[in-house]
Amino acid sequence: MKFKTIEWKGDRVRILDQRRLPGLVRHIDCNTASSVAKAIREMAIRGAPAIGVAAAMGIALAGQKIRTDRPALFLKEVDKVCRQMGQTRPTAVNLFWAIRRMRSVLGRSAQGIKELRAELIKEALAIYREDIEVNRSIGEKGQNLIKDGAGILTHCNAGALATAGYGTALGVMYAARDQGKRFHVFVDETRPLLQGCRLTAWELVQEKIPATVITDNMAGVLMASGKIDLVIVGADRIARNGDTANKIGTYGLAVLSKWHGIPLYVAAPISTIDFGLDSGTEIPIEERGGDEVTHIGGKRIAPTGIKVFNPAFDVTPHSLIAGIITEKGIIRPPFNKSIIRDVGSKAT
Amino acid sequence: MKFKTIEWKGDRVRILDQRRLPGLVRHIDCNTASSVAKAIREMAIRGAPAIGVAAAMGIALAGQKIRTDRPALFLKEVDKVCRQMGQTRPTAVNLFWAIRRMRSVLGRSAQGIKELRAELIKEALAIYREDIEVNRSIGEKGQNLIKDGAGILTHCNAGALATAGYGTALGVMYAARDQGKRFHVFVDETRPLLQGCRLTAWELVQEKIPATVITDNMAGVLMASGKIDLVIVGADRIARNGDTANKIGTYGLAVLSKWHGIPLYVAAPISTIDFGLDSGTEIPIEERGGDEVTHIGGKRIAPTGIKVFNPAFDVTPHSLIAGIITEKGIIRPPFNKSIIRDVGSKAT
Repeated sequence: MKFKTIEWKGDRVRILDQRRLPGLVRHIDCNTASSVAKAIREMAIRGAPAIGVAAAMGIALAGQKIRTDRPALFLKEVDKVCRQMGQTRPTAVNLFWAIRRMRSVLGRSAQGIKELRAELIKEALAIYREDIEVNRSIGEKGQNLIKDGAGILTHCNAGALATAGYGTALGVMYAARDQGKRFHVFVDETRPLLQGCRLTAWELVQEKIPATVITDNMAGVLMASGKIDLVIVGADRIARNGDTANKIGTYGLAVLSKWHGIPLYVAAPISTIDFGLDSGTEIPIEERGGDEVTHIGGKRIAPTGIKVFNPAFDVTPHSLIAGIITEKGIIRPPFNKSIIRDVGSKAT
Repeated sequence: MKFKTIEWKGDRVRILDQRRLPGLVRHIDCNTASSVAKAIREMAIRGAPAIGVAAAMGIALAGQKIRTDRPALFLKEVDKVCRQMGQTRPTAVNLFWAIRRMRSVLGRSAQGIKELRAELIKEALAIYREDIEVNRSIGEKGQNLIKDGAGILTHCNAGALATAGYGTALGVMYAARDQGKRFHVFVDETRPLLQGCRLTAWELVQEKIPATVITDNMAGVLMASGKIDLVIVGADRIARNGDTANKIGTYGLAVLSKWHGIPLYVAAPISTIDFGLDSGTEIPIEERGGDEVTHIGGKRIAPTGIKVFNPAFDVTPHSLIAGIITEKGIIRPPFNKSIIRDVGSKAT
């Protein structure tokens, strides 16, 4: 990748500000855990795996900055930061998974503050590196789904920008490209925040992968025209039965895919699977402010007085999903059996 | 209505500039037929019935402005304007229907230029007035479909702004409101030009009808949640078998409606039916410039180098349509029989 989504800089966390893309490639230097939390909440960094990494680095940063020589106070302050990170965004489970891993460091007994600080950094960097490795494995396991000459539709951004640095849904495409395959990617612009148009299109242009952006409402007619062979999307949380929360619009896309007989695949690390949830109905769905819909680029496009509904995610029932591409391989239906059988042992 | 979409002003045509709504209520005074054609092409005025009325008024205006006492030259010049109007937008058939009506005036023999000028104005004003009457009839025939407490989804703008002044899909809602019914309207914002968010929302706020705007990709999850009882949309051209061209996204919405068992109705005047077409595959679909997708409010949102697909319309197959609400009543499937039987005699 020609850019870094997030970087650990020792005394700060450097985040590529995705709100400014593609117009401006600008970084934010977060000197405190609070500023990392703000960057997550305000979506300067977004994408389920990426916000897990950001939260972990934010917690490691807190470890660096807390000025005390009393271990109990240190633990209390880090715990407070963990809770703060957990309140940034409710849907993506990778966030809570990363926080749990960071907390487990704190639980190791007989360590002094100095050692804890070092261990927190080590764990955050491990989460970061593992995410890239996991993404590359997802790409490797999924790339056979892409046939030479294929038309692929994707939604939102599940690329390098949504992860530590390679991508889940786009990772599969990068791996296929590296195998010498040619294909064309159609990118849903993904209202309201236009992550497809702004971020996925930007990544694909940089990677020189032929791509066409469409408005979300064009997916149906594109499928009917025969130009789409498969759909690959990311995920923010997957229940044990395969129901998948992902960016708003994924559900509609999944229905359209089913209607047209086009397989829809979810590409996600195993850390996206919430083994504690029986089904997708239990996944909390974040509702964001109406101004994301009524304003574009700071300019009001809707009349005053109109109501707005703005869920950031929706849940696609497992029956509409052809497979889940993970670092351990492609999980196939029936998911209520295969998820536990194939990757259940990876649950933490 | 508290506004006029289009007005005949004797020596000019006054058009409400819909590109500026809802931020600015600004009118354009068109002093020439060319400026009316430009307003249609650049979508200062849009909506199938409205552009038919605009073209007719533009032709009547040309009649006023052509300076000659030679009938043959007069006819030649008006004919040129008719052809110019026919080249503004290719999909909506009401445009060609209105032009044909205006041409039929020219065909009446033994008239001098003075009489022809008067007849052109008379015909344009008749088309204007009839459109409002027809809209009111559509409302009256369709309003029984709306039950008290209903949730209705609509796409794009098929309201007063899309017609001479009342609306087709929204006309049905206005008529139901006048019957004392309460209901809630969900409005697809309708990318790329946001006619739902900008125009339909504006009309509904002014008419004090409770309404919520959503991004196009939220329709699926809204249907799954049980909040939508029926979908009503307008039409730009209907083939003899019921296949309907309408704003891009209508097809996807129709598939989603069918999937969820929600009836989708098309509301349109009989002049929208193209009796010359066996099916929707023959309807020409306008493709517009990519900058409508890559730019919002003059600001670039997509990276340079990305391709764009921007069809302005799509075709919904008749099998996904529960009924077509016309001024003569609701046409029900099978449309290949009912359209000719119920309204075929109205074909011109």
